Amino acid sequence: MPSNPEWVKALKPSGPQGSELLQQERAKSNLNVGQLAEFMFTKEILERNQRILKILQAEPVFDKSQNYFRGRTSRIEAALARGKRLQQLTVEHKWTQDEFQAASDLISEPTPYGLHASMFLVTLREQGTPEQHKLFLEKAEAYQYIGCYAQTELGHGSNVRGLETTAVWNSDDKTFTINSPYLTASKWWIGSLGKAANHAVVMAQLYINGKNYGPHPFVVQIRDLKTHEPLPNIHVGDIGPKFGYNTMDNGFLLFKNVKIPHVNMLARFSRVDPSTNKYVRPSNPSLVYGTLTYVRSTIVLQAGSVLARGVTIATRYCAVRRQFQDRDAPASEPGENQVLNYTMVQIRLLPLLAATYALYFTGKGMITLYQENQKRMNSNVGKPADSTRAPGPEELNPGTDLLADLHATSCALKALASTTAAEGLEVCRRACGGHGYSSYSGIGSWYADYLPTVTWEGDNYMLTQQVSRYLLKSARSVLAGKPADNDTTRILKEFVARRDIGAAFDVIGSDTDLVAAFAWRVSFLTFEALRHRDEDKQSWNSLLVDFWRLSTAHAQYMIVKNFHDALNDPTATAQLEPDTVTLLHKLFRLYALHTLEREASEFYSSAAVTVRQITLARTKAVMKLLEEIRPHTVRLVDAWKFPDWQLDSSLGRYDGEVYEDMFHRASELNPLNSIVFDPYPESKVLFKKDDRVDLRSKL
Amino acid sequence: MPSNPEWVKALKPSGPQGSELLQQERAKSNLNVGQLAEFMFTKEILERNQRILKILQAEPVFDKSQNYFRGRTSRIEAALARGKRLQQLTVEHKWTQDEFQAASDLISEPTPYGLHASMFLVTLREQGTPEQHKLFLEKAEAYQYIGCYAQTELGHGSNVRGLETTAVWNSDDKTFTINSPYLTASKWWIGSLGKAANHAVVMAQLYINGKNYGPHPFVVQIRDLKTHEPLPNIHVGDIGPKFGYNTMDNGFLLFKNVKIPHVNMLARFSRVDPSTNKYVRPSNPSLVYGTLTYVRSTIVLQAGSVLARGVTIATRYCAVRRQFQDRDAPASEPGENQVLNYTMVQIRLLPLLAATYALYFTGKGMITLYQENQKRMNSNVGKPADSTRAPGPEELNPGTDLLADLHATSCALKALASTTAAEGLEVCRRACGGHGYSSYSGIGSWYADYLPTVTWEGDNYMLTQQVSRYLLKSARSVLAGKPADNDTTRILKEFVARRDIGAAFDVIGSDTDLVAAFAWRVSFLTFEALRHRDEDKQSWNSLLVDFWRLSTAHAQYMIVKNFHDALNDPTATAQLEPDTVTLLHKLFRLYALHTLEREASEFYSSAAVTVRQITLARTKAVMKLLEEIRPHTVRLVDAWKFPDWQLDSSLGRYDGEVYEDMFHRASELNPLNSIVFDPYPESKVLFKKDDRVDLRSKL
Repeated sequence: MPSNPEWVKALKPSGPQGSELLQQERAKSNLNVGQLAEFMFTKEILERNQRILKILQAEPVFDKSQNYFRGRTSRIEAALARGKRLQQLTVEHKWTQDEFQAASDLISEPTPYGLHASMFLVTLREQGTPEQHKLFLEKAEAYQYIGCYAQTELGHGSNVRGLETTAVWNSDDKTFTINSPYLTASKWWIGSLGKAANHAVVMAQLYINGKNYGPHPFVVQIRDLKTHEPLPNIHVGDIGPKFGYNTMDNGFLLFKNVKIPHVNMLARFSRVDPSTNKYVRPSNPSLVYGTLTYVRSTIVLQAGSVLARGVTIATRYCAVRRQFQDRDAPASEPGENQVLNYTMVQIRLLPLLAATYALYFTGKGMITLYQENQKRMNSNVGKPADSTRAPGPEELNPGTDLLADLHATSCALKALASTTAAEGLEVCRRACGGHGYSSYSGIGSWYADYLPTVTWEGDNYMLTQQVSRYLLKSARSVLAGKPADNDTTRILKEFVARRDIGAAFDVIGSDTDLVAAFAWRVSFLTFEALRHRDEDKQSWNSLLVDFWRLSTAHAQYMIVKNFHDALNDPTATAQLEPDTVTLLHKLFRLYALHTLEREASEFYSSAAVTVRQITLARTKAVMKLLEEIRPHTVRLVDAWKFPDWQLDSSLGRYDGEVYEDMFHRASELNPLNSIVFDPYPESKVLFKKDDRVDLRSKL
Repeated sequence: MPSNPEWVKALKPSGPQGSELLQQERAKSNLNVGQLAEFMFTKEILERNQRILKILQAEPVFDKSQNYFRGRTSRIEAALARGKRLQQLTVEHKWTQDEFQAASDLISEPTPYGLHASMFLVTLREQGTPEQHKLFLEKAEAYQYIGCYAQTELGHGSNVRGLETTAVWNSDDKTFTINSPYLTASKWWIGSLGKAANHAVVMAQLYINGKNYGPHPFVVQIRDLKTHEPLPNIHVGDIGPKFGYNTMDNGFLLFKNVKIPHVNMLARFSRVDPSTNKYVRPSNPSLVYGTLTYVRSTIVLQAGSVLARGVTIATRYCAVRRQFQDRDAPASEPGENQVLNYTMVQIRLLPLLAATYALYFTGKGMITLYQENQKRMNSNVGKPADSTRAPGPEELNPGTDLLADLHATSCALKALASTTAAEGLEVCRRACGGHGYSSYSGIGSWYADYLPTVTWEGDNYMLTQQVSRYLLKSARSVLAGKPADNDTTRILKEFVARRDIGAAFDVIGSDTDLVAAFAWRVSFLTFEALRHRDEDKQSWNSLLVDFWRLSTAHAQYMIVKNFHDALNDPTATAQLEPDTVTLLHKLFRLYALHTLEREASEFYSSAAVTVRQITLARTKAVMKLLEEIRPHTVRLVDAWKFPDWQLDSSLGRYDGEVYEDMFHRASELNPLNSIVFDPYPESKVLFKKDDRVDLRSKL
């Protein structure tokens, strides 16, 4: 790589240095960063992460300095090498699943083993019998079988019941025939399938004696264990480049009548009895909803941290970047203003900063609720109406447990939280101005890699239908006088009791009223939708937009409520200095009032809040909160404790040496600068010189 | 490349084929696509584009099939080869600037000659003297000098006055010394600088005898004309990968006291007199505002077309993709529903479709106004107060010409139009579900390449300050009884006359009222902001968020007004069938009512519209328009006339063969499938096989 000439090395950025500016920022605030971080993550985990970071940084294969420069093949090659080393380290250091995950988070890019290590192992573990654990799981845990979870197809994603791959039971030789009758039956998007896997859990329509029993999981070997070439009558490969996630080998897979033995159908919940050739119904299908609820709660918690990376980068850079003088500044202060001082920047970044904490507390709250409910649920679950498919949440009796409520809430929150994080990251990137567009910002690739989360584990728009179905059902139960005992029915009942009197919530003066206004809006929208559906008999399709609004309103209420509850839990807040709690309380109010103001129209039309209150929220309360939070912004992002190595961002460096880092990457790491163009159109030569080193030799 | 086995080739997608579905779509609508397209683009231009397309498709260098698979170096290598061939073809076929541009649009990716062909030539032409044209422009037009326009620096983008590069006049030897005193003075982001240019127009602070005269343009040779290596004391290179635009060599550039002759300062407007060593003031600086206004009007027009690409792709795919049954569908219709039939998809795509036409008509309107004004302006321009810098638009007398009004409007529209296009493309990508994330969707890369437009030619947030400054000034002139004669002062005067009486616009029943409601909102927000600034003496900084809202409101009013005016111009609409005009009118109403509903809060609080009207707009009018426009959606995107070759999208194919195309690209074009992994963690081998062909040999 080229090195800068001496006269360039001698140059420094003009004006106050980035390091000085960030020091000043940190000096302006008394926020106890260490204490807040320990409150959120615990001291043990912060120390553990430091330990793992050191191990990873000592390994050349995890060097990140060429990440942004590599093309897809080189990136996936590096990711494969990293995946291998990560597995070796996991064995070497006897890392737990949590420690392995912490290492993966620090590396911050998927490897081709990603779906093996998650969905393949989990599915074998949860859906396999002890015999199948012996046959498949043990080898999979030893990375002899490397697998994936093949559900989505070229023609079907959201609609799992529409999958086209078939598994036909052959009663004569006690086998299944796996087949792809159409091109659209090709498995598609399957992580770790494209290049890495030699096995797949394939979701296929089970047919016994001509009757379809719906999608079921089958273990199928797809590649030779020695040559790693596809087995006969199997067509498998990588689907190609994507907007992000390009270190993962998402794959396609087609079968031409491939036979597998009876034992390859995962049989913990439902199975084919080989002696009678009969289908045996699932014993406990609602467990699936528990898992989905847990996964979605995790997404909510992660969304806060995903967004916090972008907010950390943008906040630090906007404190270092100076542009224009303040128009009203006195002549005695001639310097340029830190970009973070402009209200137009604050209004974009600070509500997102508040959202990171709001999502953190909400995710925590959801996971606690989930765990509490698990105990109850294991002793008392509803029975599905139709055993050929998993039951909808509405088929579970809400009177006996909170699962249906938790499930609906997790759907609503997953949709809103992942959308907030994805769109928020793009706001952060743009708040960095032109430099946000550079790969060195570290936000663009992070955004691109995160984007699939808005589609997977339930498409965010699809999920809103499940939420609304649940809310309508709850509203009907309230009107019928037979409500379940949970928070949703509580707010619906309160609304029904008061709706003729009306509300006049003091959202500026009272936090309780602020939360109540969000609850009132959800209830109003629920009964509006119910009227359209049950009285006006409007079609389901014509109400999808209303359902989406309703689900969003419900999620926003849950976030505001969870954040509020967390700050009013004396055992929790006792661990923090009073000033910290006061500051978190300001973030709560900023999140709530800024959301209220953006969604003003629904707060008006539901008569939850007066026009006057909303105008005050916008012009006074929110602006005042921005001003009050501003001095603490850098410390508030510091509390998320992202190491520079993880962020891999010039703009987000903890020390503020933004420009030095950008210049170093451009002029000394960029392989394109080892090439000299022949720029004249008539010349057939493209490069006069090409001194690039072969990157592969460095892995 | 691998070829699919015979049994895979025999597979077809299930159900009705994409080709059948799109044929049905086109059969459902009577829209005269050819006529509408000719109305928008003219027959001559459509035929010209066809002719150019054939020429490009015949050239192997323009083959797009490997575009999505290449890493950055291969992409920029291909782009260099394409740029060369494009220039050869331009000479060969004697293409005009417009024809060259049409070819570039079809190729749809920047080449390293991009900024040479635009800003470098334009700046030399417009700011050079005849002597300088002879010295620099002639060689530049012959591609002997290849150049760029080096303004932005590592530390300064928006604030041009803060640039740090210096050009010091040496009276002894009549030269300038160009120097970069700080690292932050490095030119940065400069297109065509990184690898291609041998010359640069460098914007540098002119110093004469210790006094700073502000930024001025200097022609500087930076690379050797033979070896193409940097000249002594110049450090130049490519800045590295970006979120998009990776076929362009955006560069950095540092100078260590490089001397250039007197003639290298572009001297058409201002210059240094070498005999007196005195600065000579610019003769006609307001011309610069004319050019900027024109460039921004072009961005508005382009934004419609940029967005239309995404809407075309998403609409066609959502007509081919089927998922779930309609919940209320009768048992006699068991098939899955086209995704485009779901209202949740329609509410995302159809307002964007309406926006493409709205932006088209607005851009056209702006360019017409600009041209009309050019004549007036050339005979009568304001004089700047301070000749060391270009004047602000408020320094031009609005009474003598429309330039200030046009300038402000072009700022507001540039900001809103480019934001609408960029964010709309992302909505289109997500409306494609999971497959939108694949590079084969063609939307992701297009979005990523377009994104810089929200920052360049005036950062979208910064521009809103200029708009508001103008609106405040206009409001003051109205209150003082000395308003200029233009549309802005007209609506402000009407508001002042009626504001004590109040408005009650019938936005559902009357188009004129609908436009008037948008005008009322702008006026209300203008006088609100004026009161905060002039009476309450609020700081400029505290009003930035209000200014941004105000500018957005102004832009939305201009779009609604332009669209409305275009549809009520009898000479224009006479060229169209009445059904087409009716359909365009529905798009106008959809754009206006959907915007009104999303911004409901401002329409309430300004008392322009009642809550009842907005609720009706949302629940009735907009939903009804979606239903009425739905059958024509595919034909409406067809009218934008994008050839498949330009879109380069599996999902957006005109013939609907979506799944076949995706599968072909994944399994037969994807170079990663020429590689076989060694997937076992303990093995040091990464690839068991690597049969990739060297892509470079194909260029």
